[in-house]
Formats: sequence, structure tokens, C-alpha cells
Amino acid sequence: MTTDATTPRLPVTAIIAPGWDLPRWAAALRAAAPGIDLRLWPDLGDRGEIEAALLWKQPEGALEGMTRLGLAQSLGAGVEHLLADPAIGPGVALGRAVDPEMTIEMVRFVVHAVLAVSVDALGYRQQQAAGRWAKRDVPGGALAVGMLGLGELGASAARALTALGFGVTGWSRSPKAINGITCLSGADGLDRVIATSGCLVNLLPLTDETRGLIDARRLAQMPAGSHLVNVARGGHVIEDDLLAALDSGHLASATLDVTATEPLAPGHRFWHHPRIVLTPHVAADSTPETMAPILADSLRRHAGGLPPRDPVLRDRGY
Amino acid sequence: MTTDATTPRLPVTAIIAPGWDLPRWAAALRAAAPGIDLRLWPDLGDRGEIEAALLWKQPEGALEGMTRLGLAQSLGAGVEHLLADPAIGPGVALGRAVDPEMTIEMVRFVVHAVLAVSVDALGYRQQQAAGRWAKRDVPGGALAVGMLGLGELGASAARALTALGFGVTGWSRSPKAINGITCLSGADGLDRVIATSGCLVNLLPLTDETRGLIDARRLAQMPAGSHLVNVARGGHVIEDDLLAALDSGHLASATLDVTATEPLAPGHRFWHHPRIVLTPHVAADSTPETMAPILADSLRRHAGGLPPRDPVLRDRGY
Repeated sequence: MTTDATTPRLPVTAIIAPGWDLPRWAAALRAAAPGIDLRLWPDLGDRGEIEAALLWKQPEGALEGMTRLGLAQSLGAGVEHLLADPAIGPGVALGRAVDPEMTIEMVRFVVHAVLAVSVDALGYRQQQAAGRWAKRDVPGGALAVGMLGLGELGASAARALTALGFGVTGWSRSPKAINGITCLSGADGLDRVIATSGCLVNLLPLTDETRGLIDARRLAQMPAGSHLVNVARGGHVIEDDLLAALDSGHLASATLDVTATEPLAPGHRFWHHPRIVLTPHVAADSTPETMAPILADSLRRHAGGLPPRDPVLRDRGY
Repeated sequence: MTTDATTPRLPVTAIIAPGWDLPRWAAALRAAAPGIDLRLWPDLGDRGEIEAALLWKQPEGALEGMTRLGLAQSLGAGVEHLLADPAIGPGVALGRAVDPEMTIEMVRFVVHAVLAVSVDALGYRQQQAAGRWAKRDVPGGALAVGMLGLGELGASAARALTALGFGVTGWSRSPKAINGITCLSGADGLDRVIATSGCLVNLLPLTDETRGLIDARRLAQMPAGSHLVNVARGGHVIEDDLLAALDSGHLASATLDVTATEPLAPGHRFWHHPRIVLTPHVAADSTPETMAPILADSLRRHAGGLPPRDPVLRDRGY
């Protein structure tokens, strides 16, 4: 790829994502956007030169002095780290990264978690450990799936589950229509999807409205013996309330890919709870090689005066 | 439903399936075929009157004296119990039962097993037990799936896996063509699918040709670190060879819904092997209420002089 005179100059771009393999991200980005002036955390050079920042959980103060910052682009689908950073002023455009590869990875993770409930993998695992050969009464295809969040990830997961014979009811803040899926919205709709789902999957964005949503009251609304799958953010769930609902037997299991504090503290009760299936925030991962062309496109759009490819709206919080 | 003068009389029918809930099966069948003369094992009455038998693992000698038997119909997809019974003469028509509900149940079970490999559920389960929060290098969508058997069950499972982003190579005795799936057949094709699959799923019928197919030689052909999923019959696998392949580390895991002897003997090494996920032959179950209309149709076809709805061919063995 070559840049010609009509291509606007790409912004001077910082990548700030502590703990990530930044040289690999830089190599992928340079392949997708030849000639780009990239600055890798923590060696950012003159911060006054930086015009765009690709961000994942940047440390406090990492963006200080970036007086020319025009674009803050998340390296994933989540954007809490953009909205919470006081150094990102109202004039800075915000973007998320929606990678089709990440979407299908999330779909596979969610489908696996729901199927595990449907075939009662946890129950059969315990029977195997006990040396017991006996058919269990499993929900199978009669498992009613509730999907909180019908964005790209939620809608794709809902469609995949429908194809496997599940009835899926989805909920989103604003009304949606998706073929084959019962779509609800608003406060009444939220009550209904929570009260009728044998397996409730959370794929909501984390906003002021959704933080702590899954608390004692909501867990009590869920049907007795139902299951929770949280693949969104730990902040959606009040962890003590979840443990109480599992301990009382009201909730049959929780599959958690995210926790309020990550990594989960040693000694946290989630680790060894017999009804919790825990993974370390791995449901869908940003891969440099598939993500780089998407980020390069967003940077080019910014250079050309266009909004980001997948813009974040500050007033709705995602 | 009423029978009129033009409807041929339904055959006098025995149900022989020891251990099953026969009154429930009889009720479902009577609803689907009103007026049918049903005889439930072991109270068959005059065996000389019986014209059709619905069978699952009938005891030796159960069919003795059935001189008017014209149809032997399996209560499931498997038919070994029909072909192995010397009391079923060559003049008796053989049928299997293919229930769409059972097919989708099997698809869900297989998709769950393959996704568990793809997301490394076993590895993360061990990390959770060890209190370890760390991302693992999982195969994800790059997992190459091999499907042995492309009948109704195998083809449906292969299609569902393709929709989830997996590349699927299928093998069947006779050549097939299925959109989106690499279809192989013959001895060379079998070598190839076994040698190239990160996850090999067995859905073959059990015949003289396939008994003991998965032995030391075949397991050695599988790629190092690959996975086996057996949802067909325990007789397909040489169990000591499988244990050796797992113990050497050549095979990463085996998901087994079937074993050579069922129930699996107490003390069998499969129970507590850390790389074996074991379930007690539950992948797809015959349900009276969905199966009865299918069986009634087969009985009506027989009464009308037609072959069974899903006939079994003696020469191919399934």
C-alpha cells in the first residue's frame, strides 16, 4: 500500500495498553497503515505531538499533556476506560473497535456456556467425579435463554442460539427487531426477561445505568434453579448478592468470565464455589492481526475529518 | 384421529426395551396410532400374533416364537440390536427411528463438546481449581474439526459447527457433498481426516467395518495434542489404546458419551482420568412424545405394504 498526495496524513498515534504485547500491535498496525508515526507506551516522546490514542485501561494521567488529541479509540468493544478518563475532553472523538473475529469468538464462548447449562455439564462432571452412571433430568432445548444487550455481540450470540433450537428473549435499552428473537426493551421488558429466563446471559455495556444491575433484587426475580452467564463486566454484578443467591440454591450456577476486580483476589469465594465456572476475562480477545485494519480505518477516517468507524456516544455511555 | 375403511389395520405390535418407561411409550404410541394392539415387554401374550416389534436392546430370545413378525423397528438411530438378533430373519423389514428432536439434541451435545475443546474448558477448569488467573493459548476458531460419519446426525453437527466459524472435514463410507464442508470418503480420505483434525468427532454407525476402528494405529495418526469426541458407540474405540494415547500426552483429551460396557464398571480408569470428560450415554435420547408419531408412521407404512420410513440395509450394516 502506498499513500498518494490525496490521502490525508495519518495522525501521530500513541498505543497505551499496559501489559499487552505492544511490539506485535505496532507491527500489525504498521502493516495496515504504512508510514504511521506510532508511539508505544511508556515511550511516548513529546506528548504535545500526539493526535490519536489507541487505548486499553490506560494508567491515570497517561494522557496528560496531549493538547492535540483528537481521537481516543478503544482497542476493544468496551469503552469505560475512555469515558472515565478526565484527560479526554469533550472535543475528543471516541471510538470502539468491533472486530468480526472477536464477535465470533464471543459467540462461541456464550454458546458454549449456554450449552453447558443445557446439557448440565456441571452435574455430569460431579457425577463423573463420584463414579456415578445415571441419566440426569437436563433442560436441553427447553432452556429459555435471556440475552441482556442486543448490540453486535448480543444479537450475534442470540442468533446462534436460536439456530441450535433455543427460544431466545433479548433485551436492549432502545427497542430492536431481530428475526426469530423476542426483543424487549424498557423497564417492563427488563423485568420480564429476567423473570422468564432459565439462563440469563449478560452482554450489556457497563454504564451508570447498568453498574450493579444484577443485585439481590434482580437475582430474586430470576426463576428458581436458573443460571447466570456474565461475559460483560464484573461491575454489572453485586458479588456478595450473587454468592448469597447461589448459596441459598435459588440460582443453580453462575458462569463468570469477568469479576469486579481483575485478576480475582486469591481467597475470593468465586475460586472454589462448586456452582461457579470461572474464566479470567478471556471470552473474546483483541487480536492485533485482525484488529489492525479496523484501527487503521478509524485513523484514516479521523484524518479525513470523519467520525470513528464505531463511534461512542457520551450521553448514552457506550 | 379416526381410522376409516380404507386405512389398513395396524400390525399387532410389541415394545421390547428393558429398563425403559414402557407405559409412557405405550401412552404416546396409542395417542399417535389410536386403536393399536400393543404388547409391552415382558407381557407379550401370544407371540405368534405379533407382527411388528419396536426394539431397544431386547434380551436374547425375546423374539422367539414370533412367526408372523414382519417389521423390526429400532426405537433409536442405532440398529446393532436388530442386526445381531438371530430371531430376526431375512424376510423381516428393518427400520431405524430418526427423530428431528433427537438430531438437534445430538447437535447441541457435539457442538458443546467441540466448543469445550475450542475454549479449553478443561484447562480453565484446572486453573480455577488451582486459583490461577491466566490467559491460556486456546485453539479457538482455528480448531480443525473432523467428523466421522455424515448421516443425518453427522451432517447436521458439521453444519452447526461451520456456522460457528470452524473448518469441518467430514468422512463417510460413500462419497457425499455438503455445502461448506470438505467431504472425504474411502480409505485415503479416512487417513486424511484423522491425520488433520485437531478435534475428531465420531458419529459412525457400529458395523463390522467400524468396530475397533479407533485403535493404537489410528490414534497415532491423529495430530499430537489433538482431541477425540466419541458420541457413537463404545465399540468403536479400543479403550486400552485410548488410555495409552492419553497417558503419553499424544492425545490431549477424550470426551466420551459411550463406553464398551455400559454402565461403565466401577473402578474403570475412565472415571477419574484427568483428561477424560465422561457422560453416561445421554447425548441424544429417544423421547416418547416426539418419537411416537414417527413410529406410528413406520407402522402404517408397513401395514400399507411400504418399506419402513428409515430402512436399514443389511448389506451395509446400518
